[in-house]
Amino acid sequence: MENKKENFSEWYNEIIELAGLTDKRYEIKGMNIWMPYGLKIMHLIDDIIRKYSDEKKFQEVSFPVLISRKQLEVEFEHVKGFENEIYWVTKGGKDTLDVDLALRPTSESAMYTMFPLWIRSHTDLPFKIYQIVSVYRYETKHTRAFIRVREIHFYEAHTAHKDYNDAEKQMNEYLDIWKKIASELCLEYSLDVRPEWDKFPGAKYSIAFDTPMPGYRSLQVGTIHEYGENFARNYNIKYLDENGDLKYVSQTTFGLSERLLAAVIGIHGDDKGLILPYRIAPVQIIIVPIPGEIYDKILEYSRTIMDDLKNMGYRVDIDERDYTPGYKYNDWEMKGVPLRIEIGSREYNENMITLSLRTQKKKIKISRQNLRDVENYLKTVNDDIKSHSLKFFNDNIHMAKSIDDMKNEYMVRAYWCGSKECSDKIEALTEKAALGNIYNDKTSGKCIVCGRDGKLSMFSRTY
Amino acid sequence: MENKKENFSEWYNEIIELAGLTDKRYEIKGMNIWMPYGLKIMHLIDDIIRKYSDEKKFQEVSFPVLISRKQLEVEFEHVKGFENEIYWVTKGGKDTLDVDLALRPTSESAMYTMFPLWIRSHTDLPFKIYQIVSVYRYETKHTRAFIRVREIHFYEAHTAHKDYNDAEKQMNEYLDIWKKIASELCLEYSLDVRPEWDKFPGAKYSIAFDTPMPGYRSLQVGTIHEYGENFARNYNIKYLDENGDLKYVSQTTFGLSERLLAAVIGIHGDDKGLILPYRIAPVQIIIVPIPGEIYDKILEYSRTIMDDLKNMGYRVDIDERDYTPGYKYNDWEMKGVPLRIEIGSREYNENMITLSLRTQKKKIKISRQNLRDVENYLKTVNDDIKSHSLKFFNDNIHMAKSIDDMKNEYMVRAYWCGSKECSDKIEALTEKAALGNIYNDKTSGKCIVCGRDGKLSMFSRTY
Repeated sequence: MENKKENFSEWYNEIIELAGLTDKRYEIKGMNIWMPYGLKIMHLIDDIIRKYSDEKKFQEVSFPVLISRKQLEVEFEHVKGFENEIYWVTKGGKDTLDVDLALRPTSESAMYTMFPLWIRSHTDLPFKIYQIVSVYRYETKHTRAFIRVREIHFYEAHTAHKDYNDAEKQMNEYLDIWKKIASELCLEYSLDVRPEWDKFPGAKYSIAFDTPMPGYRSLQVGTIHEYGENFARNYNIKYLDENGDLKYVSQTTFGLSERLLAAVIGIHGDDKGLILPYRIAPVQIIIVPIPGEIYDKILEYSRTIMDDLKNMGYRVDIDERDYTPGYKYNDWEMKGVPLRIEIGSREYNENMITLSLRTQKKKIKISRQNLRDVENYLKTVNDDIKSHSLKFFNDNIHMAKSIDDMKNEYMVRAYWCGSKECSDKIEALTEKAALGNIYNDKTSGKCIVCGRDGKLSMFSRTY
Repeated sequence: MENKKENFSEWYNEIIELAGLTDKRYEIKGMNIWMPYGLKIMHLIDDIIRKYSDEKKFQEVSFPVLISRKQLEVEFEHVKGFENEIYWVTKGGKDTLDVDLALRPTSESAMYTMFPLWIRSHTDLPFKIYQIVSVYRYETKHTRAFIRVREIHFYEAHTAHKDYNDAEKQMNEYLDIWKKIASELCLEYSLDVRPEWDKFPGAKYSIAFDTPMPGYRSLQVGTIHEYGENFARNYNIKYLDENGDLKYVSQTTFGLSERLLAAVIGIHGDDKGLILPYRIAPVQIIIVPIPGEIYDKILEYSRTIMDDLKNMGYRVDIDERDYTPGYKYNDWEMKGVPLRIEIGSREYNENMITLSLRTQKKKIKISRQNLRDVENYLKTVNDDIKSHSLKFFNDNIHMAKSIDDMKNEYMVRAYWCGSKECSDKIEALTEKAALGNIYNDKTSGKCIVCGRDGKLSMFSRTY
């Protein structure tokens, strides 16, 4: 396998193929096939997102993929932000359609034409829905699996509130949800308030979740947006308040994508392959029976262990293929399985199992009656992944004292006045764009370029 | 509510709206919004389909939604079958695309361009995959929720085999899987071998699962297709057999759609609303606390019962809304919840619960220590649904002795020689098309039209 640190791009492409995550050889470039193992991981990520959304009383819906040009053009600034990236359906059968239909690049315009039918009174608020669907972007840039694709696996939550204050509370709730999702995926991130020129088209402001990715770039894995009344005024979304007055709702959105998987692959993986947090591992525990004289009994014992673990609710499999144990170890390590159980004649005779953690070298023997301890070891693997990703974050994100400092950095913090002019200067000299002000940072300092008052900000080359 | 028997179409439209299954007011006609309750039911149906597919070692994948014209046109007969129904993407941003891209009407051409890359040797066979995605049809006919829509929630399984014989075994395995799915959905069906002119474009033969729907039409809820080497020869899908010879694979497919939900709604429902088999009920048990003097204690007791049932693995909810019990009963009956638990002061005092089954009028009291019995009652509801649907099937599907007999029937059986001529005659006189020969029927008789030798066949008006 490629060395991850030295050749990240090659390593990334290789592991994606070896682990069977996606196949990029489809006829249409940038539209990739979700292969079984990759799709399973993505579905497990979806399950986590659903769980925390449902907990906060979001309702799941699913909107049509097509949006008419008429719907899209209601909010001019919004459609302008996407106009170069939209796939247009113009024909049905042999007919030319009366109105062009867009493959959704995002669903504001699809949903908000319906909101006036659903939201009538203050008792309908807050209104909170989400969907997990594909969105489409006619990318002209170089595509990269899970990072920049033309068909994107996407989560989008949309809310409507009685006023801006209530919408702001929603923004905080999003941050809570995101914190939990990031924790299950063992991801460290920076919360960056995007500059005016880089916020979502139509938003009052946008906060992005940026992770450092090996390969010396940052990856935006998610965003939340405060829309205020901007869309409501264009799509005419009003409600009757307690006093019988008609008011515009305030709105927010929260978006996540398959980039979460890209981050998991890129940040946690090592030269052996993937390392998966146990919540999203399609196989959490793999059992490898070791051939020997009493292989029949070893196999029978292994299967009993598997059944016990299945009954405890784990995703567990047994590798009975006709390969050497060494081959199997490598194969499952490459696939990122957090825990391996080895069972040979000694384990059989002593009624125990040998555990190997994906993140550690040592092996651990536990007696069968302590089988429930696997839970702690799965958590240990997660803790290891978290420490590793925190260390990676801290090792690589420094505070720059001068523009020169920023040149050889990865993602880098600096005080910045917020002007496009200073940001452009930084980008020209260091190839790093302003990701924005660090969310909720209370410090202040002099802009690294112009010396005016500045806020603590993050800069990086982006994917 | 509308009377189901007398005004089926109105009843169907009304219950879909009342229960919150779909919203048809979206800008693009025939593309509907999956509302939360409808989407949950559909996802539970998907879970059943996944379970039985996975059991038979199918692997889930997900292909891009777009298929280039080049890919589609590899199999001429296939694309011809769809050419009037395809949505074409012709523009990306402001560019006109070099080649038109189809929104998948089905995925043969997307998948089979990849099969030669994945299938090389006999050890790769049988090759079995499926996906659950949306497919698109530019329908010119009148659309109807879940029955005829332009964006269709779709399950498609695709297999490749070493020879025709092995593919035929796959066809039998499909029938096994389908039998299990139909049983969980409590559906009765006819297995009809479609006539030549009505088989899937590109198939050697097609078997359809047809259910009688109230409204005097039959509904095709699923199909399986034997392709033989037809697609393999066009898409050049070959493998090296044990002797080192290159051979074409034989292929099959299995398709199911959101019509399964249409059948569940239409066949099982009654004048009170939906009736859901418990496997696909988003709420399997609803608890209604009855107001009274000791309401605090009743509520506390009700919540304990809910927690107990949740721990047993049931999807259970408690209705604490500020409505009368009668209103709540009607509401949850309309939503098709199989079991209701009523808890008032008597239940609290005597440490018991009162059960009401969606399919029966009587109420049943059980002591709290027998709470596990709810499983039997859920099964009783399913048995009631099954009896009802079997009775509906048998009451309505008769054997015709003459063409005149067929006129006032629903779906109707008759012997038929298999000729298009006789089928056309039947259709002209009775408005019923040939669904095909009854699968595996061993009897024979004289064609009801021409008197020649015929096979037992099914006829119906179709949706």
